[in-house]
Amino acid sequence: MLYLIGLGLSDETDITVKGLEIVKKASRVYLEAYTSILLVDQPTLESYYGRSIEVADREMVESNSDAILRGADTEDVAFLVVGDPFGATTHTDLVLRARELKIPVRTVPNASIMSGIGACGLQLYNFGQTVSMVFFTESWRPASFYDRVAENRGLGLHTLVLLDIKVKEPNFESLARGRLVYEPPRFMSVGTCARQMLEVEEEHVKAGGEGGVCGPDALAVGAARVGGKTERFVAGTLRELCDADDALGPPLHSLVLLGSRTHELEHDFVREFAVDKENWDRIWKANYQPST
Amino acid sequence: MLYLIGLGLSDETDITVKGLEIVKKASRVYLEAYTSILLVDQPTLESYYGRSIEVADREMVESNSDAILRGADTEDVAFLVVGDPFGATTHTDLVLRARELKIPVRTVPNASIMSGIGACGLQLYNFGQTVSMVFFTESWRPASFYDRVAENRGLGLHTLVLLDIKVKEPNFESLARGRLVYEPPRFMSVGTCARQMLEVEEEHVKAGGEGGVCGPDALAVGAARVGGKTERFVAGTLRELCDADDALGPPLHSLVLLGSRTHELEHDFVREFAVDKENWDRIWKANYQPST
Repeated sequence: MLYLIGLGLSDETDITVKGLEIVKKASRVYLEAYTSILLVDQPTLESYYGRSIEVADREMVESNSDAILRGADTEDVAFLVVGDPFGATTHTDLVLRARELKIPVRTVPNASIMSGIGACGLQLYNFGQTVSMVFFTESWRPASFYDRVAENRGLGLHTLVLLDIKVKEPNFESLARGRLVYEPPRFMSVGTCARQMLEVEEEHVKAGGEGGVCGPDALAVGAARVGGKTERFVAGTLRELCDADDALGPPLHSLVLLGSRTHELEHDFVREFAVDKENWDRIWKANYQPST
Repeated sequence: MLYLIGLGLSDETDITVKGLEIVKKASRVYLEAYTSILLVDQPTLESYYGRSIEVADREMVESNSDAILRGADTEDVAFLVVGDPFGATTHTDLVLRARELKIPVRTVPNASIMSGIGACGLQLYNFGQTVSMVFFTESWRPASFYDRVAENRGLGLHTLVLLDIKVKEPNFESLARGRLVYEPPRFMSVGTCARQMLEVEEEHVKAGGEGGVCGPDALAVGAARVGGKTERFVAGTLRELCDADDALGPPLHSLVLLGSRTHELEHDFVREFAVDKENWDRIWKANYQPST
């Protein structure tokens, strides 16, 4: 049996009792460690599980999945995923491959950022499609998120923005000289995300677009280490959130851009996290009142 | 401290290790048992936790939350919620009340149907807003879900439909005669949901609406006991899903109505669950191809 086991969002104790029992008994244990990370390191997990873990990087999962699935028709293989196993496309691929090999698959779900973000006080019912934000470079500034955020805002819905993480990325300069050296891991902060959103909005407006999607006065909530002991939320305009990284602290960060179809409870709950409560109230009153 | 602890979706072993440790030590333990249920009963939970649990019904949580919060400024109170604590509005209210009383609050997240539904193979990124479907009566047929589903479909997005549960509902005939008798619990099935969707679509079309939102050939996935050992998915048209209850088995059920903005992986994954694979392929090819 292939077990896809969610680890939740924060530390080694966020695994479910069911998941832990399977990990303790499985023949082999893999940890997918490139679409997200826990706030604790691999040795902590290994000592807690009493097991050694093989880290599965993107290359292994996407190009060498048969190594993971080897023997899983007769023994148990545990594949650990931060959050919930079905947050990322990659794992769908792994299940399809297991099906081809007639290997039975079971999933042990856990908290995902897609539901855990509800802890910021915005109602999960009011979220539209989720988007991802990647690190911009000089030559690569993918702005497809903008149209999706605009679609959500057109309906008055919130948008969860998942922020880029770069783990085990090769250094291209070294690679050009024939040496494989990995860059240190990078995790996008709420500040970087807010700045990139403002840049793209500005470009759209300069190009004749209407704007009003993610401009400086758009309200948002920055989230850090959701579900962990040091969980932190900071609410404000995108302009304010450009400077919220110190208040939010270490990774992982996410961001929610608010839609206008709000509920009074959401106002009361989120206001507590506002950088500037008066500014928050003023903009909310002007632009985020429930329409009915 | 008030701890809001998610129990996950299925049985007593779906609690996280972190959550279980808190339950074992808390002064009092409440179980919210009206917005969702586990597939196991209260005595099973009590014996697994080694604790007695007080069931908190809607009236208690909404009108008598101070009883739950009593003493939580100096001792630990655990409030258990099926799924993730922030799936339902009610718990936001409880946190706001705790804040007023200066009681610190911590959340222990867990799997929610809102992310667990990813196990059906549809990508969570492609979901729009979530809607609820209530049991229609002769005089009460709320159709507000229709506009929201139409909004999602307009963008090509999937819609998760959460199905009504009726727990501890008074029998109105007895009540009129002055006796409080509770109805047996009722859980909406995928078949009932599909029939109600078809009815509302038909009414819209009769009234001159365009239709094409949730008609007989709309593709959907019925889900039962997501995250549990007996998890089951059945995919088909809404017309086909009207008769899928036997294949799906006991509660809880949910339904996903597909949007047209699909990914090839979604097709490959979900096809496996189709009632009639040829029909599924034909309709998918005609109406659900990725537009770009």
